[in-house]
Amino acid sequence: MSYGGNMNFSDHQIGIYAQGMFTDRTPKITTDLANLEDQAAATLSPEALGYIVASAGSGSTARANRAAFEQWRIAPRMLRGSAERDHSCTVLGTTMPAPLLIAPVGIQTLAHPEGELATVRAAAALGVPYIHSTQASHSFEQVAEAGGDAPRWYQLYWPTDQSVLLSFLQRAKNTGFTTLVLTLDTTLLGWRPADLNRGYLPFLANLGIENYLTDPAFLAGLDESVEANPVAAAMHWAQMFPNPGLSWSQLAFLRENWDGPIVLKGICTVGDARLAAEHGVDGIVVSNHGGRQIDGARASLDALPEIVDAVGDQLTVLFDSGVRTGADMAKALALGADAVLLGRPFLYGLALDGQAGVDHVLRCILAEFDLVTSLSGHTGAAELSRESVIRS
Amino acid sequence: MSYGGNMNFSDHQIGIYAQGMFTDRTPKITTDLANLEDQAAATLSPEALGYIVASAGSGSTARANRAAFEQWRIAPRMLRGSAERDHSCTVLGTTMPAPLLIAPVGIQTLAHPEGELATVRAAAALGVPYIHSTQASHSFEQVAEAGGDAPRWYQLYWPTDQSVLLSFLQRAKNTGFTTLVLTLDTTLLGWRPADLNRGYLPFLANLGIENYLTDPAFLAGLDESVEANPVAAAMHWAQMFPNPGLSWSQLAFLRENWDGPIVLKGICTVGDARLAAEHGVDGIVVSNHGGRQIDGARASLDALPEIVDAVGDQLTVLFDSGVRTGADMAKALALGADAVLLGRPFLYGLALDGQAGVDHVLRCILAEFDLVTSLSGHTGAAELSRESVIRS
Amino acid sequence: MSYGGNMNFSDHQIGIYAQGMFTDRTPKITTDLANLEDQAAATLSPEALGYIVASAGSGSTARANRAAFEQWRIAPRMLRGSAERDHSCTVLGTTMPAPLLIAPVGIQTLAHPEGELATVRAAAALGVPYIHSTQASHSFEQVAEAGGDAPRWYQLYWPTDQSVLLSFLQRAKNTGFTTLVLTLDTTLLGWRPADLNRGYLPFLANLGIENYLTDPAFLAGLDESVEANPVAAAMHWAQMFPNPGLSWSQLAFLRENWDGPIVLKGICTVGDARLAAEHGVDGIVVSNHGGRQIDGARASLDALPEIVDAVGDQLTVLFDSGVRTGADMAKALALGADAVLLGRPFLYGLALDGQAGVDHVLRCILAEFDLVTSLSGHTGAAELSRESVIRS
Amino acid sequence: MSYGGNMNFSDHQIGIYAQGMFTDRTPKITTDLANLEDQAAATLSPEALGYIVASAGSGSTARANRAAFEQWRIAPRMLRGSAERDHSCTVLGTTMPAPLLIAPVGIQTLAHPEGELATVRAAAALGVPYIHSTQASHSFEQVAEAGGDAPRWYQLYWPTDQSVLLSFLQRAKNTGFTTLVLTLDTTLLGWRPADLNRGYLPFLANLGIENYLTDPAFLAGLDESVEANPVAAAMHWAQMFPNPGLSWSQLAFLRENWDGPIVLKGICTVGDARLAAEHGVDGIVVSNHGGRQIDGARASLDALPEIVDAVGDQLTVLFDSGVRTGADMAKALALGADAVLLGRPFLYGLALDGQAGVDHVLRCILAEFDLVTSLSGHTGAAELSRESVIRS
Repeated sequence: MSYGGNMNFSDHQIGIYAQGMFTDRTPKITTDLANLEDQAAATLSPEALGYIVASAGSGSTARANRAAFEQWRIAPRMLRGSAERDHSCTVLGTTMPAPLLIAPVGIQTLAHPEGELATVRAAAALGVPYIHSTQASHSFEQVAEAGGDAPRWYQLYWPTDQSVLLSFLQRAKNTGFTTLVLTLDTTLLGWRPADLNRGYLPFLANLGIENYLTDPAFLAGLDESVEANPVAAAMHWAQMFPNPGLSWSQLAFLRENWDGPIVLKGICTVGDARLAAEHGVDGIVVSNHGGRQIDGARASLDALPEIVDAVGDQLTVLFDSGVRTGADMAKALALGADAVLLGRPFLYGLALDGQAGVDHVLRCILAEFDLVTSLSGHTGAAELSRESVIRS
Repeated sequence: MSYGGNMNFSDHQIGIYAQGMFTDRTPKITTDLANLEDQAAATLSPEALGYIVASAGSGSTARANRAAFEQWRIAPRMLRGSAERDHSCTVLGTTMPAPLLIAPVGIQTLAHPEGELATVRAAAALGVPYIHSTQASHSFEQVAEAGGDAPRWYQLYWPTDQSVLLSFLQRAKNTGFTTLVLTLDTTLLGWRPADLNRGYLPFLANLGIENYLTDPAFLAGLDESVEANPVAAAMHWAQMFPNPGLSWSQLAFLRENWDGPIVLKGICTVGDARLAAEHGVDGIVVSNHGGRQIDGARASLDALPEIVDAVGDQLTVLFDSGVRTGADMAKALALGADAVLLGRPFLYGLALDGQAGVDHVLRCILAEFDLVTSLSGHTGAAELSRESVIRS
Repeated sequence: MSYGGNMNFSDHQIGIYAQGMFTDRTPKITTDLANLEDQAAATLSPEALGYIVASAGSGSTARANRAAFEQWRIAPRMLRGSAERDHSCTVLGTTMPAPLLIAPVGIQTLAHPEGELATVRAAAALGVPYIHSTQASHSFEQVAEAGGDAPRWYQLYWPTDQSVLLSFLQRAKNTGFTTLVLTLDTTLLGWRPADLNRGYLPFLANLGIENYLTDPAFLAGLDESVEANPVAAAMHWAQMFPNPGLSWSQLAFLRENWDGPIVLKGICTVGDARLAAEHGVDGIVVSNHGGRQIDGARASLDALPEIVDAVGDQLTVLFDSGVRTGADMAKALALGADAVLLGRPFLYGLALDGQAGVDHVLRCILAEFDLVTSLSGHTGAAELSRESVIRS
Repeated sequence: MSYGGNMNFSDHQIGIYAQGMFTDRTPKITTDLANLEDQAAATLSPEALGYIVASAGSGSTARANRAAFEQWRIAPRMLRGSAERDHSCTVLGTTMPAPLLIAPVGIQTLAHPEGELATVRAAAALGVPYIHSTQASHSFEQVAEAGGDAPRWYQLYWPTDQSVLLSFLQRAKNTGFTTLVLTLDTTLLGWRPADLNRGYLPFLANLGIENYLTDPAFLAGLDESVEANPVAAAMHWAQMFPNPGLSWSQLAFLRENWDGPIVLKGICTVGDARLAAEHGVDGIVVSNHGGRQIDGARASLDALPEIVDAVGDQLTVLFDSGVRTGADMAKALALGADAVLLGRPFLYGLALDGQAGVDHVLRCILAEFDLVTSLSGHTGAAELSRESVIRS
């Protein structure tokens, strides 16, 4: 099955049925995307489980994200002739088979030893763009080699050390990352009880943040080698990561030092969306970081339609936080997102079966998305609109 | 107890009480219609349980169907003198003792070895119309023989092979099926994790779809007999079942090749209801296929009142998806449905006790319907109106 | 502690504390009125549990009754000086220490061998009016003797045999029942799965409906004595109990044959409340029979305020269905009820400890009512008004 | 880490991470503030659990308090440059590091042998004002000695014995309590089934209410010493505690006998807030006593915004009831509270680890508050406003 320009992802569904019937092979990972977490939870170490699955504070934001998806309902249209479907799109110059990208997630070796390499390989094979986290446990260069020619973006946590910032931008450019995604909502780490109760912060604990450990500017700030004094290296990182002073005025500096499109991730209000447009960025990600930063925050999906109304004609509007299924993806697109970032679900696939697991999850969500959009009367993602959904 | 034109279904209730008291015989199957599923679940094989009970994706649509019934509440009127009650009605030329039909369900042998034959016998005995699924595990001819003179409709999945389509229509006419119900919402099979996790698709697995296996046009498309090459037969079926290209313009062909009334099943929006009226069909079924096709879709009951307002004076409007009890049936009729199709509950009865189980479930739902409508001040189903319910 | 005209029921609370502290005696029955059911459930036989606790159909109406109470919230006022409180009132000529009556419940021997006799004794000791059910397991005469001079009303199920009707009315008058409560919502018995699944109907099973068995008109209709042919007696009863033909026009006959006030029980709509006023009755009970008759009906409390607005100036408006606590009682009164009928909770007390159990439950609900009304700024039940509550 | 005027409470978070990583020491008490109760429940005696955790009646008010927090959602703003943050404020002349005070809670020895002494020491060390309950198990003098120079307020239950009232006010002044908080909502004790079912009232049972037992005016009312006749002492207390006759006119007497600010605790309506302003008090606490007094009352948070709109320009408006996390604290402040009182959570800390436990809970809530406010775009508590939140 090829996922080219004009394809029916839902062939994957038929493949699963046929495989089970004729070879007695059933999928190793559940196809019930909403419950993937349960299966992954049995595999992950307590530390990984706490870091990946848990959210900020009482988990209220994460629950709100899911509840918001339940409130928007698909209103399917019949007999619209969707035999030929094409979900492909071009977002900020990047073409993809459907409006879906791999969200930036740090320290993926926590889920599986191959970490980001497995993820980028699975994504590349399907043409799904991969967004590389600053906190990744594999470096720009390693990921670029593993990912080959497939589209890759780079997510930036703005370090307070300007030499490291410039070095990161340069390395990302050198290794073929085309779009820059600046995360706004994590200038401090949120209050995460699952980690705190273990006194566990993966970045410090493992120091597996390879982008830094392979960075000349970062290493230049150390008195000793990382091997000789890992604690000093961890402390050095811990001093440059938090950046609560970050402000709109600094965006000009980023523009000067990055040639490609710039996207701001973590916008939750119309006010900030308008400021983003005024500051000349190319896109935004409506996101509350999957509920991992502020407890009690509004659902990301609740913010989406009003933000699209306000700036959708000026900015590319991406979305994440709470997407678990192909139907969720269809709802976010119907509410005006240009594309959707997928986070935890692919990590669960990674944890369960490495590259094959990520491949499984991506194929499942794309297949369900294809089925849902077709069955609701669309010949492609681009036809999804406000009329495709109704608020209950 | 006879269920003739003027009858009190609720005699069934007194019968149960009396039987228990004077003979110590209590009903084999629960009378708690909302929990029938729990009892059936203990009986069904895992495969049957997965196929029959589970829904599309996360089950969100199936839950929404139930939640919608909870929001509409009966507002009972007193002292209206309903000693004599008559719930009988004539829908598209078919007379029935109450506005209830057996919904089309495929592969009923999955629930019980006698499958559709048990169902049609139970329905016929009560005068409840039976709708025969294209995917049935018994053929038109077998069902016609078992059902005798009782009213029968035929549900069509439009095969992409026109010779098979025409053969189906002809056989249905020949065997006394009076009304044609074209299902619109299953041009592709929905994403159903319970089946996918088993790699299980009953149509292919058992190939027990007797309408095809007894069809000259279908068999003409095979190079070998089904016995000699069952896999080839299954693949042949699998190629003609999906029909996502189906469109409004094809309805004219159906009208040309069917003499009786035509009903479109799977309408969820006012827009499609209006198109149905414009295309000259006789009726529609407001339905989301019991939540089995699109995850996250709107509740079928939420769509009903606005559709009735829009086309109720032009089309017969039937309803299904989420009906479990006689009170549910009353609510759907109060919101404007001309009749209601009952799906899963009769299947649970079938699974638990074959023909007697279907009989039990039908008598229970009709008895409760009779009690609820009488106790709320109506002398028959026809008196149910918007004033009978209130939204909470 | 005396419950006279001017009293503080909440002394009961202090009594419980003091008893526990100084004598190590703690209450035998829980004081957690909302969970009384759980404690009673462990005591009741399966048949009694099914009959008393369970509701019609899926239990949706019973749940709606409780949910409606949760939506109305008390808005307490401070510093209003409520040291002296008086909750007493006179309803249809009957004076009571607080606007609370014992709801009519049949076959109370199912809960406790002493049945209605224990209930009426407990009620009489506190001055709480007792309403005698037509289906009681003790007769008018037995209850009158046990209840002494305390206020008693009579609840009528209108039998289709007029001689029995007239005999009932005459006996009720002779034995000091002052007000007649005609139940409208049970002209047929609702669909009650807990009973049906056992083939169990207490009226028939035990035939313990003493009002009939001691009635000359009823006995005159039998060919043999009850002892000689209990089945025939049961069948005779079963023929005269259902009365779905009952209509507004028959109320005139009742007025002719009853001297005291007449109350219609089971009103759930403004329309019927207006009809009640037009037909000249003295009062109504807004009630859905505790959710035991129609599944999926609107909450009784949801109907109350609009009915009070429509007829509150013409009719005495009583309320039942869903009251479990003193706070519930306060809410119903604030929404305009002149008094509240208490059903299941007193039965749970009866089941757990006979007369002492009913006494316990009544004292607890009155004590909590007194505390809630005082703490929210009222010097008596009469001060409760719409301003005492707010809808959330 | 110092909590001076300009500080980042969230350093505490980094401290926990670092401690876990470098010393393998993880926090003894959970950092999951919403679930602190579960951990404490395993430690508390049944009596303490019943008294501290349980609420009035069915617990409906306590649940409503929590649900109200879920409905208000933080709408975070990005890139506002919050590197330097200052949450300090001055409320009624008392300066504090953040708008948080220790709510008055009686009988704290029920949670831990050191009771109020441990609490006041932990609060004093952080500069968090401590409010001393009239029902405390340590006296004014003991608490003053333990608390040193740190800010302290005094909460008054107005005893019906005026000599005791005056003595309390005098002792509070003498020992450095600056602001008087008069509790309005507990003129009678609410209906608390958890205590009633045990016949347990801690004030009477232990008589550990040291403010009384060390009070000359109280002791003067006894015929014998407390040791000689503890029951008589308890009864004497029980006669002067309930004060349902308390009324607005008595406030003048309080003003005459107290020099500092006066705050009324337990306001839940705009009407009472306006009366408070008219009667010339300095502040109010919008509160329903944590749901411990009236079952079925409105959520305290639901009352807050309308009260702030009505009197926020005339009175200091404090808030309690339902606050569990730093995000909750941020929401209440955003809705207009000048400061928040923390109740049960500090008691859980006290129960789990004495002074260190209170310290842990305070640091956690302050750290989370700092993170949430910073991450949502504020440089201090004072910047929180209605625009910081949105109702879902």
